[in-house]
Amino acid sequence: MTRAAAAPAVTSAITSYHAHIYFASAEERERALAIRGWIAERFVVQLGTIHDKPVGPHTVPMYQVAFSPDVFAELTPWLMLNRLRLSVLIHPNTGRARDDHLVHALWLGAPLLLNADGLPNSLEDGGGVSPVVPNTTPATRR
Amino acid sequence: MTRAAAAPAVTSAITSYHAHIYFASAEERERALAIRGWIAERFVVQLGTIHDKPVGPHTVPMYQVAFSPDVFAELTPWLMLNRLRLSVLIHPNTGRARDDHLVHALWLGAPLLLNADGLPNSLEDGGGVSPVVPNTTPATRR
Repeated sequence: MTRAAAAPAVTSAITSYHAHIYFASAEERERALAIRGWIAERFVVQLGTIHDKPVGPHTVPMYQVAFSPDVFAELTPWLMLNRLRLSVLIHPNTGRARDDHLVHALWLGAPLLLNADGLPNSLEDGGGVSPVVPNTTPATRR
Repeated sequence: MTRAAAAPAVTSAITSYHAHIYFASAEERERALAIRGWIAERFVVQLGTIHDKPVGPHTVPMYQVAFSPDVFAELTPWLMLNRLRLSVLIHPNTGRARDDHLVHALWLGAPLLLNADGLPNSLEDGGGVSPVVPNTTPATRR
């Protein structure tokens, strides 16, 4: 049986999403922080540490925004319109971290290199991710 | 005032979305048609003509899937998991066709070249798109 003939995957496998907002210069960092402030005012998400040096599979400075599946429908279109020309990676978390970054991901703006080959690709390998713990208190209408 | 300091755009400007499923070989075309069948069984969308030659801004054969904003939340994650390694463009329709294809778009898989510079970029230029007229009758649980 070919891959195309198999049954499609179900989206209930997605337990959460991560958006990564990249900045490659001081000027891009300013824009990234403006976006961060807007997100904090509008969405129930977990804003991660601002990494001024590349970490994990990421080859460019960035911060992560973790959110539950129900936030995807609002935050993704908003980022489509408001990423301020920055590169943004949004990937689901299904327990297979390598595929989630390299195969299941979407990009807004120019895709960037990821060193994701070493990521675990099954729950047994430790592919699970931390639950989302929101740290924003949105008060602004989108 | 810098761009970053301006108020962000609101997603209510998005009247619909188009997904474009690209295929660059006979084998990719088979996968694209498998995805088309799966979509028809699962989502209320308007499946467009299968273009075996590049049309409009598209430089690779493809078909279009038009859908209303409420379908975005279900179809986009599903395509993240089930695009069968094909390149997929999803763009909003805000009336500014050029920006919608080049700036507001997201890509699943490798981004492809678009010849979108000639697209209108305002409603006055004819940037409006046709309303979505669904032509699927989904019967399968996702």
